[in-house]
Amino acid sequence: MWSSFFTAINALFATPSPKYEAKYPINDLAVTPQMGWNNWNAFACSVNEHLLLSTAEKLAAVGLRDIGYQYIVLDDCWSLGRDEMGNLRYDPAKFPHGMKYVADQLHSMGFLFGMYSDAGSYTCARYAGSLGYEEQDAKTFASWDVDYLKYDNCFNEGLSGSPKITAERFRAMKHALKSTGRSILYAMCNWGEDYPWKWAHTIANSWRMSGDIYDSFDRPDPHCPCTGEEGYDCSYAGSHCSVMNILNKAAYVVHTSMPGAWNDLDMLEVGNGGMDYEEYKTHFSMWAALKSPLLMGNDVNTIDAKAISILSNPAVIAINQDPAGMPVNRMWRYYVNDTDVYGQGEIQMWSGALSGGDQVVILLNAGNSARMMNATLEEIFRHETGIAPEIKEDWDIYDLWANRMDEATAQTILDGTGVAPAGVYYNVTELSFKDGLAAGSPVLLGKLVGSVEAGGVIEREVPRHGVAMLRLRRSKTRLRAASAHQVPLGL
Amino acid sequence: MWSSFFTAINALFATPSPKYEAKYPINDLAVTPQMGWNNWNAFACSVNEHLLLSTAEKLAAVGLRDIGYQYIVLDDCWSLGRDEMGNLRYDPAKFPHGMKYVADQLHSMGFLFGMYSDAGSYTCARYAGSLGYEEQDAKTFASWDVDYLKYDNCFNEGLSGSPKITAERFRAMKHALKSTGRSILYAMCNWGEDYPWKWAHTIANSWRMSGDIYDSFDRPDPHCPCTGEEGYDCSYAGSHCSVMNILNKAAYVVHTSMPGAWNDLDMLEVGNGGMDYEEYKTHFSMWAALKSPLLMGNDVNTIDAKAISILSNPAVIAINQDPAGMPVNRMWRYYVNDTDVYGQGEIQMWSGALSGGDQVVILLNAGNSARMMNATLEEIFRHETGIAPEIKEDWDIYDLWANRMDEATAQTILDGTGVAPAGVYYNVTELSFKDGLAAGSPVLLGKLVGSVEAGGVIEREVPRHGVAMLRLRRSKTRLRAASAHQVPLGL
Amino acid sequence: MWSSFFTAINALFATPSPKYEAKYPINDLAVTPQMGWNNWNAFACSVNEHLLLSTAEKLAAVGLRDIGYQYIVLDDCWSLGRDEMGNLRYDPAKFPHGMKYVADQLHSMGFLFGMYSDAGSYTCARYAGSLGYEEQDAKTFASWDVDYLKYDNCFNEGLSGSPKITAERFRAMKHALKSTGRSILYAMCNWGEDYPWKWAHTIANSWRMSGDIYDSFDRPDPHCPCTGEEGYDCSYAGSHCSVMNILNKAAYVVHTSMPGAWNDLDMLEVGNGGMDYEEYKTHFSMWAALKSPLLMGNDVNTIDAKAISILSNPAVIAINQDPAGMPVNRMWRYYVNDTDVYGQGEIQMWSGALSGGDQVVILLNAGNSARMMNATLEEIFRHETGIAPEIKEDWDIYDLWANRMDEATAQTILDGTGVAPAGVYYNVTELSFKDGLAAGSPVLLGKLVGSVEAGGVIEREVPRHGVAMLRLRRSKTRLRAASAHQVPLGL
Amino acid sequence: MWSSFFTAINALFATPSPKYEAKYPINDLAVTPQMGWNNWNAFACSVNEHLLLSTAEKLAAVGLRDIGYQYIVLDDCWSLGRDEMGNLRYDPAKFPHGMKYVADQLHSMGFLFGMYSDAGSYTCARYAGSLGYEEQDAKTFASWDVDYLKYDNCFNEGLSGSPKITAERFRAMKHALKSTGRSILYAMCNWGEDYPWKWAHTIANSWRMSGDIYDSFDRPDPHCPCTGEEGYDCSYAGSHCSVMNILNKAAYVVHTSMPGAWNDLDMLEVGNGGMDYEEYKTHFSMWAALKSPLLMGNDVNTIDAKAISILSNPAVIAINQDPAGMPVNRMWRYYVNDTDVYGQGEIQMWSGALSGGDQVVILLNAGNSARMMNATLEEIFRHETGIAPEIKEDWDIYDLWANRMDEATAQTILDGTGVAPAGVYYNVTELSFKDGLAAGSPVLLGKLVGSVEAGGVIEREVPRHGVAMLRLRRSKTRLRAASAHQVPLGL
Repeated sequence: MWSSFFTAINALFATPSPKYEAKYPINDLAVTPQMGWNNWNAFACSVNEHLLLSTAEKLAAVGLRDIGYQYIVLDDCWSLGRDEMGNLRYDPAKFPHGMKYVADQLHSMGFLFGMYSDAGSYTCARYAGSLGYEEQDAKTFASWDVDYLKYDNCFNEGLSGSPKITAERFRAMKHALKSTGRSILYAMCNWGEDYPWKWAHTIANSWRMSGDIYDSFDRPDPHCPCTGEEGYDCSYAGSHCSVMNILNKAAYVVHTSMPGAWNDLDMLEVGNGGMDYEEYKTHFSMWAALKSPLLMGNDVNTIDAKAISILSNPAVIAINQDPAGMPVNRMWRYYVNDTDVYGQGEIQMWSGALSGGDQVVILLNAGNSARMMNATLEEIFRHETGIAPEIKEDWDIYDLWANRMDEATAQTILDGTGVAPAGVYYNVTELSFKDGLAAGSPVLLGKLVGSVEAGGVIEREVPRHGVAMLRLRRSKTRLRAASAHQVPLGL
Repeated sequence: MWSSFFTAINALFATPSPKYEAKYPINDLAVTPQMGWNNWNAFACSVNEHLLLSTAEKLAAVGLRDIGYQYIVLDDCWSLGRDEMGNLRYDPAKFPHGMKYVADQLHSMGFLFGMYSDAGSYTCARYAGSLGYEEQDAKTFASWDVDYLKYDNCFNEGLSGSPKITAERFRAMKHALKSTGRSILYAMCNWGEDYPWKWAHTIANSWRMSGDIYDSFDRPDPHCPCTGEEGYDCSYAGSHCSVMNILNKAAYVVHTSMPGAWNDLDMLEVGNGGMDYEEYKTHFSMWAALKSPLLMGNDVNTIDAKAISILSNPAVIAINQDPAGMPVNRMWRYYVNDTDVYGQGEIQMWSGALSGGDQVVILLNAGNSARMMNATLEEIFRHETGIAPEIKEDWDIYDLWANRMDEATAQTILDGTGVAPAGVYYNVTELSFKDGLAAGSPVLLGKLVGSVEAGGVIEREVPRHGVAMLRLRRSKTRLRAASAHQVPLGL
Repeated sequence: MWSSFFTAINALFATPSPKYEAKYPINDLAVTPQMGWNNWNAFACSVNEHLLLSTAEKLAAVGLRDIGYQYIVLDDCWSLGRDEMGNLRYDPAKFPHGMKYVADQLHSMGFLFGMYSDAGSYTCARYAGSLGYEEQDAKTFASWDVDYLKYDNCFNEGLSGSPKITAERFRAMKHALKSTGRSILYAMCNWGEDYPWKWAHTIANSWRMSGDIYDSFDRPDPHCPCTGEEGYDCSYAGSHCSVMNILNKAAYVVHTSMPGAWNDLDMLEVGNGGMDYEEYKTHFSMWAALKSPLLMGNDVNTIDAKAISILSNPAVIAINQDPAGMPVNRMWRYYVNDTDVYGQGEIQMWSGALSGGDQVVILLNAGNSARMMNATLEEIFRHETGIAPEIKEDWDIYDLWANRMDEATAQTILDGTGVAPAGVYYNVTELSFKDGLAAGSPVLLGKLVGSVEAGGVIEREVPRHGVAMLRLRRSKTRLRAASAHQVPLGL
Repeated sequence: MWSSFFTAINALFATPSPKYEAKYPINDLAVTPQMGWNNWNAFACSVNEHLLLSTAEKLAAVGLRDIGYQYIVLDDCWSLGRDEMGNLRYDPAKFPHGMKYVADQLHSMGFLFGMYSDAGSYTCARYAGSLGYEEQDAKTFASWDVDYLKYDNCFNEGLSGSPKITAERFRAMKHALKSTGRSILYAMCNWGEDYPWKWAHTIANSWRMSGDIYDSFDRPDPHCPCTGEEGYDCSYAGSHCSVMNILNKAAYVVHTSMPGAWNDLDMLEVGNGGMDYEEYKTHFSMWAALKSPLLMGNDVNTIDAKAISILSNPAVIAINQDPAGMPVNRMWRYYVNDTDVYGQGEIQMWSGALSGGDQVVILLNAGNSARMMNATLEEIFRHETGIAPEIKEDWDIYDLWANRMDEATAQTILDGTGVAPAGVYYNVTELSFKDGLAAGSPVLLGKLVGSVEAGGVIEREVPRHGVAMLRLRRSKTRLRAASAHQVPLGL
């Protein structure tokens, strides 16, 4: 009866959330998916104090901090063995002032500080791992005022192969972090091995549910041996998993997320150069709507206007940070003959409930050329029992990408000559997404582009490898049109 | 040699059951599949004393209690943490007079009382779970005069992944219940994880064998990632499993059921509105014939005449409650091109032995339009060794849906202006199904609609998403017809 | 390097077997596959002293004892709980003189006595199981002079799911049997769960490698959910597995057999009536050539001449009892369009080395009509390294079914009016198969029907659902024919 | 984030390797894949002192020792039980002077000595196994001055089925070897069971990743039940795996190799006679480029000129021994209609980074006839993030098979009448591959055959079952041609 519960919430309690005894499974963190930046995708082992602090400065300067990207997460390669007491040592060549200094600097800039270790003998880059040192290392991190731990899975001595064995290994660090008394977000990274979506809610604030992402929209790669076609079941998670590969695995498990316990689809590749910007928009839209943690993975010091325009879209981030915490569900999927150079081609429709009774709908075109796509209200609204009453209502349609900051504006911000206009930017330090949504802040809604009558159909032109991402809200000011059930959407 | 035993019973001992040393594996309950009502499908967490008691009253009033629906099962969301002694507390806002009061009231109305907990840290709705509290919680349930425990699988701390690990967790509650000295039916709900049909007979009275049902006949949903096509083997049971999905998984395992130990196909959706009434008839017929527990899952206070007409059919319930306890087997399955909007289309034939030498046969049309279907006696009767002698006999054919209560009569009962006529209703408190069958009670047989000669063929028109459900009985009064082997069935 | 060893024997040491330190893995029994009779397939729980003793008498009378069917194995349902000391009790209604008496009688008739228990809480028919009673029950069996234990897997409390867990459970009985000091053949019956072909050699003398057989040549049945198409990997073995289903699973694992440790394809169905006699011939041929234990499963008191003619063919039994102990390998498999009512149709060729440098070749026609089949020497002889030198030799061809006892003769034996002529019968109490083969006993060779030159092709007409089963022996008296490489085989 | 690390090295640190804290996971051995000879493939159990020493003499005489084949590994069948102290005894009939003598002789000839045991009760050939005797046997091997242990997996008592159980068994010997104080290369041989590529880096210097090889290019065999089509996941590794079968499994896992910890594709079959020499060239090329250990498996005393010409190609061995230790990756794979007698036909392209910024590219034609094949720089160079800058550079192309020793020369060496000319031979005792590559030794580069401009395409004619194996080096002396992006490659 596991996941039916979450859908039941959708149907029965969409607006007022039911009272749980256990508000969040392990702590009060990650009530909505964590947001921030991690150095790995762009820098791998090339880490040092300057990288972290300069990135933080830039994030603040271009407004990404204040729209919610709060955590600066240092990944692997920061350490230099253990001292004579067995304590992890930072590499003084990379971090001349130590980690506590980095934390202090970041905190003073309004960020939180994340670090990395591994539930094995070594980290993935073969630095000292924390297996057997959980208590000691958690104390070290707490002593450095760390706010977030990414905990990896390399060199784990074969301690995997069943939920029990893997859970024991990762639970050790959960307890160790708790013992420190410091509030530390715990991000588990075991690549979806042993079905963490079934059990990790009581272990961590988030867990990776697939092999590592790489900067490709849909290229198959033997390093990522499991395809989305086989669904969720993968004995060897691998790496080099494309956006579509991860998405097609996530479809089967993402509904198990809940406030405080999220399926992590891996860090973002937006801006790294391996996809075009339509693909990056799709990548960002889907990660947001599936309630993945949103950790930027690009080089912020060389970020361009197009990437800012995507990463700072408040209407899309508001989906990710919606207080209901309900991931979208894939309502249908069809293969199309219109395939790309890798033989891939499909279309999908995703839909999910939002707080306040709204609904987010995504028409995903992973075919090789632009196409008209549509979805009926009957496809969009489904309950576990009976016919969804929402089908019989009228809905206004908001395009969540229509009002984002344009690239010219983003460029002036990058140039230090402009600021984001109020209509396209949102400052979470002034008003939380939760309060902004409750207050009906227009910048969080996108652009009203049409409406659909009860029993009707939504139709949109969707670009190649792109999405139409829409928010439906019960109609007050319906735009009527000729056709009985079809309202032109203003394209 | 496991399941061959059960078939051997069929062949060799169909009437007199062999003497077992261990009459039933764990206790004397569920000698036939349990029947009753559970609030989850229709009400989820919206539970309280009034719901249970008003439902019980209505069940009694419309005759569903006395046809066998005996257990009123309260599902999740009834508790409010533990007291200072660690005892589970009921939520006084929902249950102002406490659970013992509910039990007393239900008992006085002639019902038995079921409750719910979970073999994990939390229940699925994140109330307190019983993992580590088995003895204490079993005592609490016994102190409340509870007669039935549904025991769920959420938040299980990763204690799954092999039969041994899962069995240990669920065995703890079996022992705890036994220690109380009270007779409590134990219904395991781990969604078929780790193949309970192989080992749960010595743990529980029933076990779920699939992910959660939802109110759809055959719509695929990514929350239910395993399809019937892959058979029984599913690492992630999920939810949103359609009637046909569950049925196609059950085909591989259901023969492992035996008196006192049943495969549970999940609670009924009849009357919830997501299927049409032909589909609900099919759903109910198959659940009954596969010897699933029959727990209604609808809102009884708003039940309509159509639902009563289905749920109260004594001829179908008599199949479920047949004392031989032999589930039907799927004898063949074919795909058809006549598919519905979800691309699904197939036909199946199921057959199984009944006490007294009768046979139940089901022609299942999961194609998208009505069709003639047939089955030969050779297909219907198969033994493990040799040729079935039943093929060489003549059989009378009874249609098990032909004599059910019509909707007009059901409506008068709902209106409080009528009672069920004897010919369409059966009162189990007057005569058990076992005794009624032994006595040849006509209402349990359906309607005689024809016969088939030795070596012949049965043929029936079957509606879209419907069944023909037939009882074969050795001929005494054969209706002869022109064709050598084919007797018109009177449609 | 596991199985390559066995093939290497084939290539390098076909005649003189290499000296092993550990001659046989667990004891000196089952040097060749065990032969005998078990009551289950025909009688299930209907067992008693008379059945066993009358069957033994008949087996002796019709010559089946002296051709090697040595073990009389009593299956489930013989017991009646445990006494106050916890010792298993026999059911005195079924065995009025006790089990020791049965053993004595069988021993005096020249048979060995097998019994049955189960590595679980109950046997499959729910009599007392031996889990937790291994030492005590083994002593009981030894005290009754039992020579063979079939040890089943029902009600195992979930103690399965990995080789380690299953091996521990079955190893307990191995040690218990050994402790008794009596020489007891140990036949493990866990239906191939957890890959016993990988590890059971040090546990038992034989192990079942699939779900239970049923009396059908190739009918699919959902009780046997794994098909040969998926190969060896099956999480739920089930039952109702056809001859072809088991064979197609065995193809992947049977080469792991070795003297003293055999893959058991389950008991024979020959004579039970569900297949035609061509199919029974195929069934018997394949079981023999794959070195399965050969346990008859029919009602011997009503055996007919056709069944005797199959079961007593010395040339086929000599393949099973060949001292090299090398199962045949499947060299190729093709699907054919010529399918039967169940949609099945395929052809296969199997080949394997025999002691003395001979080779057995089987052309298996599982298509729906008779057909010419052929195999080249290149297909028949394959080594792990290099080109097989046998391809460059000339071979005489013996048909192993051509000289069997005809049905008329078998009938005279059944009638008590005749004896088996020397040319078609073999008495293993006079000369072992090993010695008979070494001595070139003609009755063990079948009939010389042709020869094939180096590099040539063998061709035979093979009936529907039938085999051509041939022994190749290096040519001395080649029958020359017109075609260069093809010698007519005299059909 | 496991394997992404290795690719990140490729992108970011191709020339200067990053500083790891743990230089190699378990010891300082196998910094590049081990090379040598093992007797099993050609001799199986027919082992003795003479075989080892005469093979060593021949290897030295024909120059194979000095090109890197350093280890002489004695496989199974050398022992004769344990003495009264439990110490393993060598078989004095096979090794009249004992194992220490063999080691001394080999050491004096400039070889290192490898031996064999098994993590089970018996070895695969049923000699005494080391399970439970790890410490004692490791001491024995150390006392004999053994330098290498191949540790097999037969008769393991069911101690498999999860990474944890298998790792424990093999870790025991790792610790035992370490305790001896002697430097012993540890080669794990559990046939890829339980995914050793995920965890064996901290256990062994190499681990087998598939079932046993046999001497066939692509013939399917039921002894090797898992095909490359299913990828890496195999519950029963089996044996009789063809070169293409192993290669197609390795594609998914081989990138997990790193200096000191290698995926072992099994011993070479070059020269054993079951493949043609084009196939052997392919086999050798792929094993080298995937960084498999290179253990010859042929009879060196009867080696012919063709085999020497393949096994001694310094340009290919230099790929295997490249200090960067980066296996090639499969960049694409296509099926072709041009299939062979076994129904197999496909083409693949593999590519990988080398030290110094070079790249190795392999065009593999597993189709049934010669064909033109090509690959674009875009296909050859892929990074995890962004577009590979190498695509925008010009590259010279070296054919790694063009300059190998010709057969006539090899024949003179075999005849003892000639020596290998400097241009085709490389003596690793004079200059290591690492130093030779750093010094730009021409014999390690193959033959310059053309170049390709930025963004261009490489095209080569590739024989049936053959490869084109190319080294790309940044252009200095580009050969210009007419076509914009295509440079003729001089064939």
